[in-house]
Amino acid sequence: MKKKIKKINTAILIIGNEILSGRTQDKNTAFISNWLNSNCGIEVNEVRIIPDVEKTIIENILHLSKKYKYVFTTGGIGPTHDDITAQSISKAFKVKYEYHKEAYKILENYYGRKNFNDGRKKMAKMPRGAKLIYNPSSAAPGFIIKNILSLPGVPSILNSMIENCKKYLTRGLKVHSKTMSLYTVESNISKQLGLIQKKYKKFVDIGSYPFFRLGKIGVSIVSRSTSNVKLKNVNNELMKLVKLKKIKILKI
Amino acid sequence: MKKKIKKINTAILIIGNEILSGRTQDKNTAFISNWLNSNCGIEVNEVRIIPDVEKTIIENILHLSKKYKYVFTTGGIGPTHDDITAQSISKAFKVKYEYHKEAYKILENYYGRKNFNDGRKKMAKMPRGAKLIYNPSSAAPGFIIKNILSLPGVPSILNSMIENCKKYLTRGLKVHSKTMSLYTVESNISKQLGLIQKKYKKFVDIGSYPFFRLGKIGVSIVSRSTSNVKLKNVNNELMKLVKLKKIKILKI
Repeated sequence: MKKKIKKINTAILIIGNEILSGRTQDKNTAFISNWLNSNCGIEVNEVRIIPDVEKTIIENILHLSKKYKYVFTTGGIGPTHDDITAQSISKAFKVKYEYHKEAYKILENYYGRKNFNDGRKKMAKMPRGAKLIYNPSSAAPGFIIKNILSLPGVPSILNSMIENCKKYLTRGLKVHSKTMSLYTVESNISKQLGLIQKKYKKFVDIGSYPFFRLGKIGVSIVSRSTSNVKLKNVNNELMKLVKLKKIKILKI
Repeated sequence: MKKKIKKINTAILIIGNEILSGRTQDKNTAFISNWLNSNCGIEVNEVRIIPDVEKTIIENILHLSKKYKYVFTTGGIGPTHDDITAQSISKAFKVKYEYHKEAYKILENYYGRKNFNDGRKKMAKMPRGAKLIYNPSSAAPGFIIKNILSLPGVPSILNSMIENCKKYLTRGLKVHSKTMSLYTVESNISKQLGLIQKKYKKFVDIGSYPFFRLGKIGVSIVSRSTSNVKLKNVNNELMKLVKLKKIKILKI
């Protein structure tokens, strides 16, 4: 009997002109994805990068929140005019955009009543009904409403907050992965690799990624599965292929 | 009389499980976006990262090709089983997936007839009617069909090919940008910055991005516009704000 695998689908919505323009390299996708997989057994199935445009944010929030169990947003929850994520999510869900009492207190404490100006107050405004995702590094909290988890865009701050998302997430089955790095070219093994993938289609995803290292060309074969046993089987088949083709192994 | 600005909208579709899983950091978005803006005056308006799943690729190709003037895809045009981009685009546009004669010759020459195996031949298969995007570094060409430009996922190869996309692209108006890096915090200037943005709403996009440098906190103000004059005006207003608030400038 086949074991039923509980996969949890997730999307990331990166909000920010600076990523689209190429000025800033997005690092949040890789970080969130690795964290979700290692800590929660959750896979990321889609990422979108969109500009700071209200209509676009609303459309994407509505679309992705229907399609995925969770949607992580990054960016647009700071104090400036281009930070319109919380406001846009409020509009998407037709709820009031208002001060969150606890967030207001946290920020007022952090800045002191005297320095708590309008820009700073803005960071306490959220969709009505939102729950806080605490921020240990710079106070301004993220929030969760329905299945949307909103985090800031600055990677160091986001990274410090991610553990505080855990309590809101259902755990899925952890996806294990094995990487075998070989000194060969893809087209030397593509046929056999295709046959192995076909055989384990239902259980293991096999990816093949060329690399260049110290002037040598190689391929990393990455196998991913929720089953360690199936992963081991695939690994054995790959070892047979490596021996057959007399391929030098860089790393297993 | 207002000058009509010709903006060309573009999307990037990143195809590959390795990016979604967080194993590989996407570098192609920033590279393509910077190149398009500097060389062709074309802005990227949306990026999607999706898995190597035929149905998903087809849906996204159809959606994005209708919505944008150009769509760049990266990844999935190599020799292995998980390289299904060309095949999926053929299905999306309901055209035959077949050997491209010139691509076949290029690859046969590159590998030599004896070593031209099935995996390598696969890289000559494209949607019928595709035109080639030549590859100076590893021979296997990308292609353009309708408004879709398909490039490989390996950044060094993609980078070597990008110039060969130019002849297929209509030029838009170049977007200029100015960055002012200040030793202050966003919430200290958010109000005034919002007013400046409001005043120049139609001409200049102003973004505000916190940074950390040698233990100090700062903000980079990035203004982007197709008009150098308007950009200069915004810069003057920002200088006034900096003087008023006695903010130390790191870099203009």
